[in-house]
Formats: sequence, C-alpha cells, structure tokens
Amino acid sequence: MKKFINSTGSLLDESLLGFAKAHADIIKLNTTPRFIERKNPTTPPGKVALISGGGSGHEPLHIGFVGTGLLDAACPGQVFTSPTPDQMLAAAQSVESGGGVLFIVKNYAGDVMNFEMAAEMLDCPNATVLVSDDISLPKSHSIGRRGVAGTLIVEKIVGAAAEQGADLNTCKILGDKVNSLTASIGVALSSCTVPALGKPTFDLKNDEMEMGVGIHGERGHETLKLASASEIVELLAHKINEELKPREGQSVLLHVNGFGATPLMELYLIYDLAAQFWEKKGLTIARSLVGNYTTSLDMAGCSITLTLLDEELTHLWDAPVHSANLSWGR
Amino acid sequence: MKKFINSTGSLLDESLLGFAKAHADIIKLNTTPRFIERKNPTTPPGKVALISGGGSGHEPLHIGFVGTGLLDAACPGQVFTSPTPDQMLAAAQSVESGGGVLFIVKNYAGDVMNFEMAAEMLDCPNATVLVSDDISLPKSHSIGRRGVAGTLIVEKIVGAAAEQGADLNTCKILGDKVNSLTASIGVALSSCTVPALGKPTFDLKNDEMEMGVGIHGERGHETLKLASASEIVELLAHKINEELKPREGQSVLLHVNGFGATPLMELYLIYDLAAQFWEKKGLTIARSLVGNYTTSLDMAGCSITLTLLDEELTHLWDAPVHSANLSWGR
Repeated sequence: MKKFINSTGSLLDESLLGFAKAHADIIKLNTTPRFIERKNPTTPPGKVALISGGGSGHEPLHIGFVGTGLLDAACPGQVFTSPTPDQMLAAAQSVESGGGVLFIVKNYAGDVMNFEMAAEMLDCPNATVLVSDDISLPKSHSIGRRGVAGTLIVEKIVGAAAEQGADLNTCKILGDKVNSLTASIGVALSSCTVPALGKPTFDLKNDEMEMGVGIHGERGHETLKLASASEIVELLAHKINEELKPREGQSVLLHVNGFGATPLMELYLIYDLAAQFWEKKGLTIARSLVGNYTTSLDMAGCSITLTLLDEELTHLWDAPVHSANLSWGR
Repeated sequence: MKKFINSTGSLLDESLLGFAKAHADIIKLNTTPRFIERKNPTTPPGKVALISGGGSGHEPLHIGFVGTGLLDAACPGQVFTSPTPDQMLAAAQSVESGGGVLFIVKNYAGDVMNFEMAAEMLDCPNATVLVSDDISLPKSHSIGRRGVAGTLIVEKIVGAAAEQGADLNTCKILGDKVNSLTASIGVALSSCTVPALGKPTFDLKNDEMEMGVGIHGERGHETLKLASASEIVELLAHKINEELKPREGQSVLLHVNGFGATPLMELYLIYDLAAQFWEKKGLTIARSLVGNYTTSLDMAGCSITLTLLDEELTHLWDAPVHSANLSWGR
C-alpha cells in the first residue's frame, strides 16, 4: 500500500488538523468528539442547522461543504466507518440556534442507526433526510438504496433554503423532494485501497470494469469488459433515464463525479457524452457540476447523477456558497 | 490502460467540448485553433490580457483558471505536448483589448519556443513571464528549472493585478517577482499513464517513491524507499527552505498540490505536517491552498509549494476570482 500517512490509526486526526488549519477562515474543528462546524458567527440565529456526516475517505464530502449556504456541521467517522452518535449530538448542540436540526444522512445501516440514536438524544426539534440516489440496487432492496453523489445536491439545495430562512419542516420536505428527483450510478476502473486493509478491496482484470459500484470499495452489480467512454455513458445514462423518466423539455442538473483517481480530462469527456445523451432526448442541461466531489479514496471511476429541476430548485442551486472545497462567485 | 476515452486521438477535443459545455457561463471554446477564453464581455477594455497554456493532462491548470481575476485565455496542447504558436496567436488576437499581452509560460523547451514564436508574430505590446519554481533541478541546469505548481500562484496574483488595472510592465515585473519568491518540489508514489503510450512512463516498486518528480511522467532526481508522511514532508520542506531561506516572522503561502490520484485526506495530512515544519521555524502560514490543481493525469503523489508573501502579494492573493475550477467567495 502506497499512501502518504504516518499510521492508519492517526490518519484521520492528522488530516482533520490540516483541514482545520488550511480553512481556519471558514470552519473550525472540534476534536473530542470529532466534528467540523462553521466558524462563528456565520450561522444566523434561528436558522435550521444542517448536519451531515459519514465515514471519511469521500472528501471533500462532507467536511468540505461546511460553510455559508451549505452545512452547519459535519461529523467524520473513520475511513468508510460511520461516525458515532456522540459526534452528531455534540455537533447539533454546538450549532443549533433555535431553528431545529436537520440531519442529512446517506442511507447506510450504520449511519442511519447512529444518526437515529443522536436524534433521539437531542432535545430540540429535528428531522432527517435520507439520501438514497444510487440506482444500481433495485428500489426493493432490503435496506433500500445507498446514498452517493446526489448527497451533495441535497446539501446544496437544502443549504440554500436554510440560509434563506426556510423552517425545519420546509427543509425536510425539500430534501426529500431533491432526493426523489435525483438518480446516480457509478462505474469503477479500479478498486480503492482502504488504509487499514492495506490492499484493494476487490480485483479487476486489466480489461474489466465494475458497473454500479458503491463508494466504499463495494463491488457493483456487474463486472463487464472495459468499453469505450461512449458505450459506458450509454449504459449509465440509460439506467438513470429509465429511473427518472424525464419528459422532453425537462430542465436538469447533470453532475459527473470522479471517485478520486480519474483525471478531469476524462470527467469532462464523460460529461460531454452524457449531456449529448439527454440533449438528444430533448432535455435542457440547465446546470452542471463536474469534478471529484464524492470520492472513494483512490478509486478510478466516476458516477453520473441527474436531478430534475424546477424553478425553485434552480434558484436554490444558484444561491452563493462559501465552504472549504466548494464555492462559487456570483 | 484503463481510461474513460473513445480514442487517444479524440480525447482532447471531446474533453474540451465537455469543459466548454459545463462552464458556458464563464468561458467559451475556440476549436480551430484550440483555445479557451473568457466569455465576453468579462475582460474590461485596456486590461492586460493574460494568456497561458501548455500540454493537457494537468487540469484544472490552465483552462480551469480562465475567468475573472485570473487568465483571459489558455491554449491547451495535446497531452503533455506544447500547444502551437497559432493557438497562442489566435488567443492573443481574440482577447487583446489595448493593454497588451502577457504570456505566462512554464519553463519547458517546447512551450518556451512556441510562445516565443507567437510573441514575434504578435503586433501588439507583449511580454512573457517564465515560471521555473521546481527546485528538484539545480538552478544551473542547462535549460533552467521547470515550471510546476507555482504557475497557478503566478497566474492568481498577476491575474488580480491585471484585473485591478496594472499595466503590462507592472504585470511582467510582478510575475517575475512571484516566480522568484516561489519554490516547489514533488514526490510520486506512482507514475502516470499517458493515453498515447498506454502504460506507465516509469515503474516504481511497491516500496519505492520518486523524489523531485516532474508533472509529465518524468523520473525525479532520486528513487527512495517509501517513508512515512512525516519523513517525506521533512525531506521536501527542507529542500524548499534551503532554497528560499525564509527569515523568522516571514509570512508565507503554503500550497499542497495533488498530482491527480492522491486523496484529499492525504493532502491535508501533508499540509498539516508542512505547516508544522515552517511554524517551528517561526514563519506565519498566512495563506493556504490544498487540492489537485496542477495534476499529472492519474499520478499518485503531491508537491509542496511555498511563496514568500509581502503585503502586496497577500492583497492580490485575496482578490476575488471566478473561473471554472477555482473560485472563492469574499
């Protein structure tokens, strides 16, 4: 295993120290228990407090999205391991300012359970949005579909609404709406290597790719022969299209996400092919996001996410944000 | 070779189409010859036109940095191959608006020659800043030192000055000043794979790392046994410190750059260790930049860049920017 680390045990804390130091203008780190929160006093009083979290190794998700117009706090677990309820509880107690707490949780058993425990212990109004945008598993899957790159879209849109003063119930309904209008699917060209394991979690031959892969080094639903970019995009986009069934003239947000080790050149090429796919179907690609946002350590691969937009969602997507790893000007 | 491509011959053009489509609010693409320029009319009349370029495969450098407060145009060559003089000439003719042209060129023989040819053909005032921040080669090297991650720092600071109305001569002197105050050095854990070659350009054993590596898959000056992150940072930071010899109390910008396949978790850990190195020497880490900005396709590795700051440079670093892959709020 080749990584820039001192020890697998200290990786997370050393990394968080660097993150907190590099972005001390925007966020601050609480070390015991671990959470990242906005640097005071950027959270206005009475604003709904948005909190997310999950295993580390997906950076910039979630810690890089704490800031104005996005999250109020994020709770990082160990690599690919759920954070614990005390982290979420401490984060909530720190950032809640009278508007209640909305947890944004990727649908994995450990995350769901621990956020539920935190919610039970919390003595203020709270709600949870479960993100389940990964369509590689059927809707009927026993624990439901996983949350992947669509999580950022939920965080961005609900983040804008919360910043503009939407109340807890409105934010919860909005988050569920974005989740229901969002579908993602990914493909890997290589596995990632979890530091504590020290080797790739699965093996692919030189001429193979893994379709429907998760973001934790899980295998996908199918191992296929490596195909051209056009063929790969056709496969992924077709599945998303079957799921969301967008109508002609529909306005959409197209997000091409890299898993960590795929060059931007390739992600933009994938984006172009995916945009062509939906343009041919008469859709309007109204908004775009291309880059490594929901990563899986050093995995080579990418995912395509489509969100059906309406005027409300487009307006919220365009609201300014300022966080460590996502910011855009106006 | 595992890449998301249709053919090595069409990779660049397909990728540029996607880039132009995804960022049509900020930039536009000229296809023949290839250059990316700001979407009109964001370049104010009389502003010095800043143009950079170089081989592709380093994205987001340079095309991702075309926009307000940064470059006016960028000329992408094929992967790791210099763009041609007709690209730079056409870009200059398109974006020059009375203030003259400043070329920002990484010091590689092909780039330098082709930008010189373009400068000779150009019938408006122009100047060139050569970036040569890579200290892995001695200053006395026959063709001089290479330009690497420090290029973005030159582009950002000169970009701010040009946006604020600095004239051509002032921008040229400023660019040279930033270059002289900047030193970088990199380390690779793996080679990259150039699409046209189809295999890694060099081989490293499982317990080896390559010190002083370039950004084109060139070998470095030394192959060493893989060490801990602390030992690696000590080696890199020590070399930079010997070069720049910062005094106690000096204010600096610390940039940790990923080469493409290194997770953000590791880059932030490297950042923390490098910050500690210079804090122990009494320096003030006044500004920071951590992420994959000057990449080498899918290479695993990183570089550390230090720039000595004064009030002028800090002020310019803080000026707002808005480009495809670099933007920050105020």
